[in-house]
Amino acid sequence: MAAGKIYMIPVTLGDEDYRKVIPEKVLEITRSLRLFTVEDIRSARRYLRLIDKDFPINDTVFNELNEHTNESEIGEYIEPVLKGSDMGIMSEAGLPGIADPGAKLITIAHRKRIRVIPLAGPSSILLALISSGLNGQSFCFNGYLPVKPSDRASRLRELEKNAREGYAQIFMETPYRNQRMFESVLSVCSDSTVLCIAVDVTLPGENIRTMTISDWKKNQPSINDRLAIFIIQ
Amino acid sequence: MAAGKIYMIPVTLGDEDYRKVIPEKVLEITRSLRLFTVEDIRSARRYLRLIDKDFPINDTVFNELNEHTNESEIGEYIEPVLKGSDMGIMSEAGLPGIADPGAKLITIAHRKRIRVIPLAGPSSILLALISSGLNGQSFCFNGYLPVKPSDRASRLRELEKNAREGYAQIFMETPYRNQRMFESVLSVCSDSTVLCIAVDVTLPGENIRTMTISDWKKNQPSINDRLAIFIIQ
Repeated sequence: MAAGKIYMIPVTLGDEDYRKVIPEKVLEITRSLRLFTVEDIRSARRYLRLIDKDFPINDTVFNELNEHTNESEIGEYIEPVLKGSDMGIMSEAGLPGIADPGAKLITIAHRKRIRVIPLAGPSSILLALISSGLNGQSFCFNGYLPVKPSDRASRLRELEKNAREGYAQIFMETPYRNQRMFESVLSVCSDSTVLCIAVDVTLPGENIRTMTISDWKKNQPSINDRLAIFIIQ
Repeated sequence: MAAGKIYMIPVTLGDEDYRKVIPEKVLEITRSLRLFTVEDIRSARRYLRLIDKDFPINDTVFNELNEHTNESEIGEYIEPVLKGSDMGIMSEAGLPGIADPGAKLITIAHRKRIRVIPLAGPSSILLALISSGLNGQSFCFNGYLPVKPSDRASRLRELEKNAREGYAQIFMETPYRNQRMFESVLSVCSDSTVLCIAVDVTLPGENIRTMTISDWKKNQPSINDRLAIFIIQ
């Protein structure tokens, strides 16, 4: 029997209307699948019920793939695909495989010559970047920075240096630590460095602003517990 | 009068069904606009007629923004937005503001405190990355590499070094030079380096493969004149 395919399934970034961020044909494919590997099972079920109130949750298999999953489990997740089932991979928000552990499964899929098909949807990182006015010709995504203040400061200095070489530097933080991250950036980076903060991308409270550090010092926003993407250049 | 908004409008990557890659609400917003700044006017008109066969092209203003546009013209494009009109920015393919000159206009918009709103759609770069199995936690997009063989080789060596430090390195080439780019990568990079080639992402001929350079040497594909994203790690 021919192997199944793996679909990289986008989901909403929060409580926006799903028709705002997910294409119609992507919704159709998502609704048709009965095998998923997901970052969080509860979020995945909630999303499937949102896009299809009659989605047969009880007839669907969910594997969990997050920082607690070990390599041998991931290998087992691939077995039904090798036997012909199609599988969807979903993250907690946005595109899977960015800032989540989905890549481990895809690496195995390529080794086994399984076809991997990406489906278009929202990426807060890229949507922030294109709306920032910063350099979309060359940029780096750095994920989460260290939490320890001294390590964070030296990492920020490093990113600022790389930004000077022409690469916009994108990073993020857990929402409840956003305000502290903002303060670190203001205290570490030079006044002439340009900072974009993209808050709640695609969500009702969306606000994307780009200013120099010196202007941000005069206009300090309240971003704690909101989704934020930071970009410096 | 309040200023208008600037929408970052995604378009299809080629001849796929637009409902596969563009969300329904994004189509609605796109159809409602009568002022656009676009990378190429003919492509923009063709796309608008594709998603709405009755689109009133003749009642719509198109500004062109590409490598030939000078800064003072870009400043003028913003004037109607300051007076209250909403504007859409469109690239030739995918998301605007990535690997195109759209950022110049957005920089001015932020300075004038105009709201910039990103709309979700397909990005061949990110769709390639999430399907590659390479590092979605940290990556760099490097745009186009130099064309001159010796410059290209030294740039590829630099990217390979950065990849060793943990950052997946994404780059692209003009379609008619893809085969030469592929040959450069094979000859410059080490056999153990992992290369993803994502061809025709979202299009009918889509093919995304990740292998070591040594395996690619045994399986050389034909990618000239097709859309391709390259990623090394």
